[in-house]
Amino acid sequence: MNVNFINPVLGSILDVLSTMAHIEPEVGSPKRKGKHDVVHGKNITGVISMVGRRGNASIALTFSEAAILHIAKKMLPSEITTIDGIVIDLVGELANMVLGGAKRDLENRGYSFQLSLPTIIFGCDYLIAHKTNAPIIMLPFTMPEGEFVVEAGYEEVNEYVYSSSLPSNLAP
Amino acid sequence: MNVNFINPVLGSILDVLSTMAHIEPEVGSPKRKGKHDVVHGKNITGVISMVGRRGNASIALTFSEAAILHIAKKMLPSEITTIDGIVIDLVGELANMVLGGAKRDLENRGYSFQLSLPTIIFGCDYLIAHKTNAPIIMLPFTMPEGEFVVEAGYEEVNEYVYSSSLPSNLAP
Repeated sequence: MNVNFINPVLGSILDVLSTMAHIEPEVGSPKRKGKHDVVHGKNITGVISMVGRRGNASIALTFSEAAILHIAKKMLPSEITTIDGIVIDLVGELANMVLGGAKRDLENRGYSFQLSLPTIIFGCDYLIAHKTNAPIIMLPFTMPEGEFVVEAGYEEVNEYVYSSSLPSNLAP
Repeated sequence: MNVNFINPVLGSILDVLSTMAHIEPEVGSPKRKGKHDVVHGKNITGVISMVGRRGNASIALTFSEAAILHIAKKMLPSEITTIDGIVIDLVGELANMVLGGAKRDLENRGYSFQLSLPTIIFGCDYLIAHKTNAPIIMLPFTMPEGEFVVEAGYEEVNEYVYSSSLPSNLAP
């Protein structure tokens, strides 16, 4: 994993939660995600990818039900007690803001990217698929009210050599 | 792909839609899903898996927005014009009924399985991850109002040999 990407993602999630929700979560130890690592329990995930001529990236924000309801309570004016359409939109927006922050950081170093629209996954014990072949790093976060995990992968692509291992829709 | 599984899945989806929604979709040609095959456009997917001592299976029902709104209109009393919480529950329920039908068929032949809870995915241009290592077959369906695709994979597991290629949570 390229620390040039994981550090902007970490900075971005802390920045978004502090600014938008006045939340300062505790950051745990990162670990490499296994191919078949299942998200356990009832969760909601926002996945978003970005693609550019020199690389592609994907992040997923996975919140336990307790965690997202706490964040929703801090960010939204209305009382939220269950995962509904408003919470789903919020998860997509959080994923968008976090990857948007990391994108700005990479662009400042001369890269350029386009963001996809967020995909939302929710249920129990599911797998998250990322549209990148990069290794995925999992960063766990805890709040007294609940946990969430950020998954991030970033793959540099040689500008002049076509990589056949890339999904065709992600080819530069 | 085991036709002992794809045929019950096909029978089950036709049965569910005919009984519950009075819809008779046209069935297209099945094809093998590639590892990086992305669902294009705006869609909603219900994924559900089952696991038993002698095998495991996964199906995903992916509806275009137009297709699921048409099915919702035929199945539900209230007028539905957008993908909301009710439509999300409907997609989970349809996935549950379709895999439930295929499960009954396999159980009649002496297999036994437990169904997972459904996972819902929605967004644009996403990847669907299945909790099985089986090859996945895609069966396309068309209605005048929109398209949907059923993905199904079924893997027999030797009862007496532990397969290390299985995700640990799916091990028999």
